[in-house]
Amino acid sequence: MNKEELIAAICQKKSFLCVGLDSDLSKIPSHLLAEEDPIFAFNKAIIDATLPYAVAYKPNLAFYETQGWKGLQSLEKTVRYINSKKEKVFLIADAKRGDIGNTSTQYALSFFGHSDDSYNFDAVTVAPYMGEDSVSPFLAFKNKWVVLLALTSNKGASDFQLLNYRGKRLFEHVLETSQKWGNDGNMMYVVGATQAEMLEVIRKIVPHHFLLIPGVGAQGGSLETVVKYGMNKDCGLLVNASRSIIYASKDRNFAERAAHEAAAIQKEMALYV
Amino acid sequence: MNKEELIAAICQKKSFLCVGLDSDLSKIPSHLLAEEDPIFAFNKAIIDATLPYAVAYKPNLAFYETQGWKGLQSLEKTVRYINSKKEKVFLIADAKRGDIGNTSTQYALSFFGHSDDSYNFDAVTVAPYMGEDSVSPFLAFKNKWVVLLALTSNKGASDFQLLNYRGKRLFEHVLETSQKWGNDGNMMYVVGATQAEMLEVIRKIVPHHFLLIPGVGAQGGSLETVVKYGMNKDCGLLVNASRSIIYASKDRNFAERAAHEAAAIQKEMALYV
Repeated sequence: MNKEELIAAICQKKSFLCVGLDSDLSKIPSHLLAEEDPIFAFNKAIIDATLPYAVAYKPNLAFYETQGWKGLQSLEKTVRYINSKKEKVFLIADAKRGDIGNTSTQYALSFFGHSDDSYNFDAVTVAPYMGEDSVSPFLAFKNKWVVLLALTSNKGASDFQLLNYRGKRLFEHVLETSQKWGNDGNMMYVVGATQAEMLEVIRKIVPHHFLLIPGVGAQGGSLETVVKYGMNKDCGLLVNASRSIIYASKDRNFAERAAHEAAAIQKEMALYV
Repeated sequence: MNKEELIAAICQKKSFLCVGLDSDLSKIPSHLLAEEDPIFAFNKAIIDATLPYAVAYKPNLAFYETQGWKGLQSLEKTVRYINSKKEKVFLIADAKRGDIGNTSTQYALSFFGHSDDSYNFDAVTVAPYMGEDSVSPFLAFKNKWVVLLALTSNKGASDFQLLNYRGKRLFEHVLETSQKWGNDGNMMYVVGATQAEMLEVIRKIVPHHFLLIPGVGAQGGSLETVVKYGMNKDCGLLVNASRSIIYASKDRNFAERAAHEAAAIQKEMALYV
């Protein structure tokens, strides 16, 4: 999906909601455990319920990998299911990858290299620590995106991301330097909603890029603040909520409750789009 | 495997060689493509051939993930095969993971949480960008290790790792700060052999930790320099070679050639251990 298509989807749905599929066997409703593939059954129900309100989905790879190859099968089915929908959505592999060039190429092939829809993502989250040649292999794929970690939503973000070198913090260097590698048509940045007051600074460095904002909901970030400091003329935001939507209920009504939570966020988003 | 066991294995084999299993369908000998699981067949032959000369193996996750869930099956079989050997080896998942706490916990469970030998690693490589709470979940497992990226072997290492904050470069901050999270019994650091001249600086910060040194062989690093600046009283080094060993030949004699290459490195290592 390219930038124009993403913006069109946002305008059409009046939503910039990304639903995080952090699907965990120990947290999904227990009646689903009787299904042949409980994680896929859960994801399918969540997707069907939230699709009217979401423009993006973000499976978190860790939750699939922890189930071994069977987890990867659940993820592949999920990706295929999303890609089979008539309605295009933006699909992010939240994988935080990044390695030397020939290895990053393999990761890129893994997420972007499939010619059919079986395991075909639009974007992958990438860690910047190893620099340009760890990121650029992902940028070699047309209409695919790198979502580069800049300023994350967790407490540990302050350990290194805020270190100040020549008047600029590490995350600012990441934002500046990485603009030489890609552009606002193939790179986005992760900025935690818990760091929303930093969005003003960030928007000065990357006025045109989309930002992926996790941390609204369970992690405590506010949508209003994110919009105030982060929105640009293209919207420029994908706000992710995971646990607050997908685990809104552990009962048989989980999908309905997820839809309700997603709808509430979308309703607030519609005020701004 | 704990530190004493690792040191004992090094002393016994007079080797601190780690063989990187970057096993790539497009590079393995073509006659193996007729096998039911070519990657596993390749790994099995490489492991059998190099086991007398290696104390550690390091499957590179990207090369398995790129084959989807079938790749994960090949990797699980490989891990089970290594763990079935009477002789203990140190098994590193080269995955460069790292995410917010609850996600890193899932990654840690994925690599360390299996009670049987089916998918049980000793260590996982972790990227430091997201700080303490992205790393500490991996340290909660007894006799398991984090191998934290410090100074990597690739060109992009200079983009951020060398930025200097208050007289210390980012990789030095990573080395210093992370020592509060773990100790030399559950953390190692990645230092590229192509950066061997930095080992003197690094050894001043982490005199007792093991270092995982990639970049000898295909990437051009020298073993002699690594030993000169990096070795400590416990050896303190795991030197990885991947492509120069596993792809020493593309013919039917590939395992024999891999053994030959591994033996040559071990012979040089025996001079120092």
